[in-house]
Amino acid sequence: MGKAQLLVEVTRDNRVESRHMGHAVVVGRGGTVQRAWGDPAAVIYPRSSCKMVQALPLIESGAADAAGLEQRHLALACASHNGAAIHTDLVTEWLGGLDLGEDDLRCGPQEPADIPARDDLIRSGGTPCQIHNNCSGKHSGFLTLNRHMGAGPDYEKPDHPVQLAVREAFEDVTGEDSPGYGIDGCSAPNFATSLTGLGRAMAFFADAHNHTGVRAHAAARLVEAMHTHPDLVAGEGRACTTLMRAMNGVAIKTGAEAVFVGILPELGLGIALKIEDGGTRAAECAIAAILADLGVLDGNGTAARHYLDAPLLNRRGLDCGRVQAAPGFPG
Amino acid sequence: MGKAQLLVEVTRDNRVESRHMGHAVVVGRGGTVQRAWGDPAAVIYPRSSCKMVQALPLIESGAADAAGLEQRHLALACASHNGAAIHTDLVTEWLGGLDLGEDDLRCGPQEPADIPARDDLIRSGGTPCQIHNNCSGKHSGFLTLNRHMGAGPDYEKPDHPVQLAVREAFEDVTGEDSPGYGIDGCSAPNFATSLTGLGRAMAFFADAHNHTGVRAHAAARLVEAMHTHPDLVAGEGRACTTLMRAMNGVAIKTGAEAVFVGILPELGLGIALKIEDGGTRAAECAIAAILADLGVLDGNGTAARHYLDAPLLNRRGLDCGRVQAAPGFPG
Repeated sequence: MGKAQLLVEVTRDNRVESRHMGHAVVVGRGGTVQRAWGDPAAVIYPRSSCKMVQALPLIESGAADAAGLEQRHLALACASHNGAAIHTDLVTEWLGGLDLGEDDLRCGPQEPADIPARDDLIRSGGTPCQIHNNCSGKHSGFLTLNRHMGAGPDYEKPDHPVQLAVREAFEDVTGEDSPGYGIDGCSAPNFATSLTGLGRAMAFFADAHNHTGVRAHAAARLVEAMHTHPDLVAGEGRACTTLMRAMNGVAIKTGAEAVFVGILPELGLGIALKIEDGGTRAAECAIAAILADLGVLDGNGTAARHYLDAPLLNRRGLDCGRVQAAPGFPG
Repeated sequence: MGKAQLLVEVTRDNRVESRHMGHAVVVGRGGTVQRAWGDPAAVIYPRSSCKMVQALPLIESGAADAAGLEQRHLALACASHNGAAIHTDLVTEWLGGLDLGEDDLRCGPQEPADIPARDDLIRSGGTPCQIHNNCSGKHSGFLTLNRHMGAGPDYEKPDHPVQLAVREAFEDVTGEDSPGYGIDGCSAPNFATSLTGLGRAMAFFADAHNHTGVRAHAAARLVEAMHTHPDLVAGEGRACTTLMRAMNGVAIKTGAEAVFVGILPELGLGIALKIEDGGTRAAECAIAAILADLGVLDGNGTAARHYLDAPLLNRRGLDCGRVQAAPGFPG
């Protein structure tokens, strides 16, 4: 990995307290790198930022249409959701429509990030289940594809037909052979790529509506599903949801360890960034800064300010400092 | 701030996924820097890592003894606790003994980090209060000192006699005039210092038992209180508690934004470190690595391995990677 660039600073009483270095790239039509910070050749795990890539075979195979999936299901297939009722009710209904249940999932249980849902669960004496897992929409997509393929139940294994189809799509849209995979938080393989590869994939999604072909058509449907249902892609208070609501037709997606991507159909641009240390607050600030710099996010709007100039409020609500783009970034 | 050094790496499937840079220093008797990584002159906020310094005036003034405080109260005054019953019961009793209550605190409410305490609170329909705040022991110490001083109720204000006494002690043991303060998560001022200054303060605490004088005596009592009550200083599952239990007579303390300090009385050494990006997982790994390197922590013991070679377990319990000291660190 080449040298990272200072992207985000955390200040307290106007003194820098912490710093976040990272890599970022903006890729245009045809896969051309238009702007880069840090090392665009850095090899990263996209983590959940590539869920729209992992959902391509679900549509391309015809599985989504055969199962009668609607746009909201496609949005949820791309989601790292909060486990709120709007997410878990839809996953439950989706699995029921396949005659499947919670124990067919392989993503593992996770406590909901949504506080009302978490508190309801605790009050009712329940325990978190796999449907609460932020990846349960993606896994419902895998199960739908698997039903269509007629393959075995171990759909999360790297050599299973579902994951082989994901890998083929991933390598195609990144334009690179993946150097390998890591096992993700939800147990599915997560394929490594260069940051430029991830940006190239996002540029493919951004320009997909201008192209014909099964893959481009699937990509365009997923982009539309994401920006049409920002509440399903993450949840209340989350950066993906808040920032997508503040933009028109732009899809963005976070990934664990501080990855963030953007798909800008009007400009035909893809964005990919990785904060080297895995700090989510910095990834959120950096993506907002790039989106504002490119003019698709109003940098003076409430949503943008929350991430571009994030106040550090203490436990009495006092304003103690800021998370902000570093001087000179985006430029 | 000078250049940070790579201290900790996060790997997934043997590929580096994230990296943490930082600064660290080991200071010996008399304030001599014995080892340094990154920039020992880096100016930092110690945050909660300096709670034992903030507790010095409580003892030096005679307030602690006048209020009949025991060793467990002193440990809690140095704590960033989990809000478990062992912590909140003692704070409640402490405040009651002063004829004070929760609304005299100025630290703000915080949800307990202790899961059983959190779940009990939610089940009972309660809401987090200031006693649950991880700093409520420190603030009970401030209130005890304030009662002794007979000053006004705004004990958390930077110009209040309580905080002026803290500043005097802080600048004395760090051996530096503080360049200023930031407001901490608990609303008290947190004085900035160089990393070397913080290490020098820890070396003072480490060697205090060999010295006479009110300040040295107070420091030695606090060190003994901390390592005698590791469960009060943090809580079950926390690095401070787990690692102190695995050592003899060593006190360690975490601070927000990835500060960690160590006090090693037998060796007469103080340790201070700051991960530049504020990532706690890296601070925990780095302090364990230095403690093991100095021979006070058994690097092959269960407690140490958990931080030196921290497994990344996913939501199905699968081992997906590691948080480890970077090659060449500590050296």
